[in-house]
Amino acid sequence: MTAINSIDGLQKRVSRCPFNHWLGLEVVALSERGVQLRMPWRNEIVGSPTTGAVHGGILGCLVDACAGFAIIAATGESLATIDMRVDYHRPAAPGPLTAHGEIVKLGRTTGTADCRIFDERQELVASGRAVYLRREPPQDQ
Amino acid sequence: MTAINSIDGLQKRVSRCPFNHWLGLEVVALSERGVQLRMPWRNEIVGSPTTGAVHGGILGCLVDACAGFAIIAATGESLATIDMRVDYHRPAAPGPLTAHGEIVKLGRTTGTADCRIFDERQELVASGRAVYLRREPPQDQ
Amino acid sequence: MTAINSIDGLQKRVSRCPFNHWLGLEVVALSERGVQLRMPWRNEIVGSPTTGAVHGGILGCLVDACAGFAIIAATGESLATIDMRVDYHRPAAPGPLTAHGEIVKLGRTTGTADCRIFDERQELVASGRAVYLRREPPQDQ
Amino acid sequence: MTAINSIDGLQKRVSRCPFNHWLGLEVVALSERGVQLRMPWRNEIVGSPTTGAVHGGILGCLVDACAGFAIIAATGESLATIDMRVDYHRPAAPGPLTAHGEIVKLGRTTGTADCRIFDERQELVASGRAVYLRREPPQDQ
Repeated sequence: MTAINSIDGLQKRVSRCPFNHWLGLEVVALSERGVQLRMPWRNEIVGSPTTGAVHGGILGCLVDACAGFAIIAATGESLATIDMRVDYHRPAAPGPLTAHGEIVKLGRTTGTADCRIFDERQELVASGRAVYLRREPPQDQ
Repeated sequence: MTAINSIDGLQKRVSRCPFNHWLGLEVVALSERGVQLRMPWRNEIVGSPTTGAVHGGILGCLVDACAGFAIIAATGESLATIDMRVDYHRPAAPGPLTAHGEIVKLGRTTGTADCRIFDERQELVASGRAVYLRREPPQDQ
Repeated sequence: MTAINSIDGLQKRVSRCPFNHWLGLEVVALSERGVQLRMPWRNEIVGSPTTGAVHGGILGCLVDACAGFAIIAATGESLATIDMRVDYHRPAAPGPLTAHGEIVKLGRTTGTADCRIFDERQELVASGRAVYLRREPPQDQ
Repeated sequence: MTAINSIDGLQKRVSRCPFNHWLGLEVVALSERGVQLRMPWRNEIVGSPTTGAVHGGILGCLVDACAGFAIIAATGESLATIDMRVDYHRPAAPGPLTAHGEIVKLGRTTGTADCRIFDERQELVASGRAVYLRREPPQDQ
């Protein structure tokens, strides 16, 4: 178990994933407690044509990614998501979002992490949790 | 409460949403019990660079969309997602996916629907559920 | 992996658990697809003093038990619950409840099962899902 | 919306519920951020006959109760649980448990609250979340 200690190192790991790359996920903070990712705006992620609010599924992508990278940063491991939950608190208006991922429990077989997503005004727009199966680190690292 | 009875009518509603449009979601079946959506393959939706499997968050987008359209088809209403859950059963290999959405309970204030996602070999790759707040139909329809 | 094929055999396993025993859970059906448990009424399980409806947590106990026994019946194994979700569809009026548990996916490490809970009038009062970590069968069996 | 400001006032509300009363739930702290409930030990709540660990469903009862009372304390309202999730982190050995409930988001129609459950050694044994439909305060108060 080898932690990833640098923002650059974790960014490399984040961007290796094609969909995270498409979303433009950027690692903005990294500590023992968790990680912070920034997702820029892009027009394709709109869910509601009337309000322009972000698609709920995109917020789920952020939860899965950010909660997972909180564990990956702490362990260096590869993970498989067992399940994920997202609660929607208010519509996410157009603009960049920031996601805070934090480990809840790192067990022997599974790990659980939380994610909270804030808009530009620091309002909580969604929050969620995912549980992961811990696996060996990827071979190609 | 006016049901949407034609595949074309529901397809129009699905494609009005920019992210559903980007995903290329296609309505392939529609009945009183639920809806069936097809999501074509595109390279950007990969989650794992080593296996090429679909990003878990994208499967969550399908759950949110397909479960929601099962209720929208039955009611014609607009919905706000309260929360969503996704369970991942096996990696979704590259290729089109089919999602089956089905209403579990349509209450006065909220509605609950399930979604099961199958790959080309008809293997269940993920399944989930979302709960929605029922709202008035969109004005611009 | 040795399935439990008789109602008596599964009932013995259900009743070994002190809280299931207190709830009076009774195995009423058992097939390859799943199990059916009956929970009799008792005054202590009321959640709402004004309506007399069953406590939501008790319905969660039924989900955890019934979804789990669907997997235990198929495998004979012991399980540890990873997580559980319950959706509440309508108040469960005083009277016996019946829970239907069904396996969604039995993986190598984890298993997922659904549970639907019906009241005496066959109305769906709650439904949910749990994910379990598969473990070796208990030594003392 | 009238907050419940005293431990005695909230305890009265907790104990009005027959199953909470059976569990012996005791309000031990109350602040603007949330509530803290203590659940004493009793032999009937055992889930595992081999380890003596608490039944997972009982931990769900604590999540539903404690998350709900965090909102009830802040609003004085009556709630209906829409759904609940529980993650199990380690077996809860025999002994009293303490649950910490905290509001995540209080919306106009729904409210979301978290709950974390600790054993006597202050180990996190389970955590979860519930979403509630806000209703008028009960008439009989």
